[in-house]
Amino acid sequence: MYLMCKVLFTIFLRFLLISQVHSLPKKKSYSEIKSCNIGNLAEEIASYDSVVRDIVDYVVSGPFKRKTYDELEKFVDMFGARISGSQVLEDSIDYMIKLTQDEDLTDIVTEELEVPHWVREQEKITMLEPRSKNIAVLGLGRSVSTPPEGVTSDVVVFSSFKEFDDAPIEYVEGKIVLFNAIYTTYGETASYRTQGAVRAAEKGAVASLVRSITPFSINSPHTGSQYYSENVTKIPTAAITLEDADLINRFYTRGEKVVLNIKMQSSFETKTSRNTLIDFKGTKNPEKLVIVSGHIDSWDVGQGAMDDGGGLFVSWAAPIILKRLNLRPKRTVRAIFWTAEELGLIGAAAYAEKHKNESHNINFIMESDEGTFAPRGLAVAGTQEARCIIAEILKLFESINASTLVETDSPGSDITVIVKDGVPGASLHNANENYFWFHHTEGDTMNVENPEELDLCTAFWTAVAYIIADISVDIPR
Amino acid sequence: MYLMCKVLFTIFLRFLLISQVHSLPKKKSYSEIKSCNIGNLAEEIASYDSVVRDIVDYVVSGPFKRKTYDELEKFVDMFGARISGSQVLEDSIDYMIKLTQDEDLTDIVTEELEVPHWVREQEKITMLEPRSKNIAVLGLGRSVSTPPEGVTSDVVVFSSFKEFDDAPIEYVEGKIVLFNAIYTTYGETASYRTQGAVRAAEKGAVASLVRSITPFSINSPHTGSQYYSENVTKIPTAAITLEDADLINRFYTRGEKVVLNIKMQSSFETKTSRNTLIDFKGTKNPEKLVIVSGHIDSWDVGQGAMDDGGGLFVSWAAPIILKRLNLRPKRTVRAIFWTAEELGLIGAAAYAEKHKNESHNINFIMESDEGTFAPRGLAVAGTQEARCIIAEILKLFESINASTLVETDSPGSDITVIVKDGVPGASLHNANENYFWFHHTEGDTMNVENPEELDLCTAFWTAVAYIIADISVDIPR
Repeated sequence: MYLMCKVLFTIFLRFLLISQVHSLPKKKSYSEIKSCNIGNLAEEIASYDSVVRDIVDYVVSGPFKRKTYDELEKFVDMFGARISGSQVLEDSIDYMIKLTQDEDLTDIVTEELEVPHWVREQEKITMLEPRSKNIAVLGLGRSVSTPPEGVTSDVVVFSSFKEFDDAPIEYVEGKIVLFNAIYTTYGETASYRTQGAVRAAEKGAVASLVRSITPFSINSPHTGSQYYSENVTKIPTAAITLEDADLINRFYTRGEKVVLNIKMQSSFETKTSRNTLIDFKGTKNPEKLVIVSGHIDSWDVGQGAMDDGGGLFVSWAAPIILKRLNLRPKRTVRAIFWTAEELGLIGAAAYAEKHKNESHNINFIMESDEGTFAPRGLAVAGTQEARCIIAEILKLFESINASTLVETDSPGSDITVIVKDGVPGASLHNANENYFWFHHTEGDTMNVENPEELDLCTAFWTAVAYIIADISVDIPR
Repeated sequence: MYLMCKVLFTIFLRFLLISQVHSLPKKKSYSEIKSCNIGNLAEEIASYDSVVRDIVDYVVSGPFKRKTYDELEKFVDMFGARISGSQVLEDSIDYMIKLTQDEDLTDIVTEELEVPHWVREQEKITMLEPRSKNIAVLGLGRSVSTPPEGVTSDVVVFSSFKEFDDAPIEYVEGKIVLFNAIYTTYGETASYRTQGAVRAAEKGAVASLVRSITPFSINSPHTGSQYYSENVTKIPTAAITLEDADLINRFYTRGEKVVLNIKMQSSFETKTSRNTLIDFKGTKNPEKLVIVSGHIDSWDVGQGAMDDGGGLFVSWAAPIILKRLNLRPKRTVRAIFWTAEELGLIGAAAYAEKHKNESHNINFIMESDEGTFAPRGLAVAGTQEARCIIAEILKLFESINASTLVETDSPGSDITVIVKDGVPGASLHNANENYFWFHHTEGDTMNVENPEELDLCTAFWTAVAYIIADISVDIPR
């Protein structure tokens, strides 16, 4: 396809010349569409063009080339998966601190907090009827165990909560519920994972299964968070693959009884972990913050290279590159490595609580937790005026095709707990079309990462943070 | 990219009109390029145009629409994986015979043969150094077991046989060898799987691992055949994922010792299975055969829907559709369901041996064992004259974009044992670009199949077989 496209493009260019047609209508940018008027600020922002070029050159073809990828690779190879509450997560935090200190950045603070430590042990699902088959499984975070002999029952399948709500209680009671919702968007479909167990338990189900939250699979189960409710019986809950969910659903639809035995063992306790804050202090308003962030914990499968090793390392790189290039902005650039994101944004919530009296000082907060594939721009929450300023800044990234501003009210995951209180913020918008193929699976490894794309993300992340931290005005609320 | 390409293409088309350029050079067909001269036969072949249309209509939008897919689905759901020598394979053979009889086809013969029955039991690989990690594994067919406590040793990694051959024997002796060859083509890369254990054992290795034979992975191990040598120690051998192979290789390249414990248990015995032959007898030369075929056995993972359920069912469908449409050709159309393909083309070899004195009667032999995605044409072995005739027949499938003739000396897998003796034959050329993503994995399920594409394959397969069985000349040798 690429080759065909290239050939067509070449032919097309020739025709352009032949036909003496010199220009097609230029695509309008966000700020043009939105009738932004930011006055003299546009000129000021345009003046950062050379800084952007310096940073991009330094990262993409200069001394920092491939550094983000190589450091990420060493990190995930050394530690592997880093689940909340584990010693390996704490060791990985110590390692990141040391790695930062080695770059002569010394404003490093860790803030302790209590985190859940859920440990997956034996997990096995066997289909007993209509025929014997092993069902690939990943239990969901915080799931309770089954009795040692497992839970054995027949399955009732629902393609939506609507369908589930319509079913009489007798139909569900004592059964294993399978929520078999076809993937639409992550936000929409993940609710079957996060709420499935509670909803099923409310109707007396003995266990709850969810079709993995992904549009594509090679029989890959996807774990993830789920939330029990105080007053509802906690039942075991797990994800199965698209393939097995479809198989069970086909039997079920044909009227054949599907009986499963589910064996799940896990343990749960509370441990101490840490958020890590690295400040590259501002020259004029050091109390004002531009935050770049990613989470350091991961699920207990794969290596957490994509979720969220990439976000962690582009955020780690930002203050380091600014220091190396001696680009000290007026405001402080703070990198935060959130802990315990996967079990429910625990680290971010603790930070928000601890720093609630200083939240007016957060000028802008950024998070990368949806992949670090080729950067395309930012998904921005804030006022129209705030977005106009960000849009103007993004124009500086046209050369790397990262000028898109996506409007959102709830960017990222961790930072939602801060942005919801009116702090303007953004998440990295990137070419992450296949992100959910690997998300929360054993396939989240270095194999999905790309050094050139990671370099572009690092350069983009660093330069955006610098400009916002350095311009003459605060991002308005 | 696709969208950009589409937009560019649209604009390009407009310019073509504006510039009064009306034609690009037409793509030449095989028979034009190869200066085929098949005389009056071209006209005769062209006269089958309406038969092709009838068959395509019957399958794609008529009474047979979705039938291949629905029957395949019922079949793989009922039986699942069907490994050589298993009772489930024999049951599935009985089922296919019944399914054929239900269509009033009665010329059904089974031919017994001895087949290997290798049964995978416990398999577990644990990385002990430089850190503890579970390594996803699928043992290779016929692999011997390890002792119960497993084999523990450090790993030596080779990216090619050349590199391996250059290594001194002391470097390999007592070690676990990992053949970490990057996927190029299946034919080329699979040799590391088929020959790895013997090569490694010749240098005194205690076990042999292979990087799974695939260009893409979600931490998916791919099993497959391997062949021990009479005079070489049989060592345990297994496939690991791209991700783990890369991880081990990175440690190894950095000079870190990688120690693995490999535990594998399996059993091996000889059983009886059957090839199934279904004849739709010819009117004029019933002794002459046009064979359509696929294999009914599968690996013991996934459902064997793609490998080779699709090939099995398009071959099953061909005589049935001809019977239903009362299209009885001059020669016999024989569908064969090969058994025990995966363990080494055992069924096909037995057929070739048993029927060696009648091989002159095989007018043409066809196999579908590389997917039944959108059909594109045939990969054909035979003389130039034979290919010219097939190319002329393929012209009739331009409307479904299945007119491509690919030259090969060795089409398919099972039929290679027959084609190598000079019998002209072909395998289904189809849009199977992602075939090896799922091949020999737990992901080989109905989820990779597509009803519309399967219908097109069925129509194509049936019509091609009919025309070759009915035209006035034999396919020349």
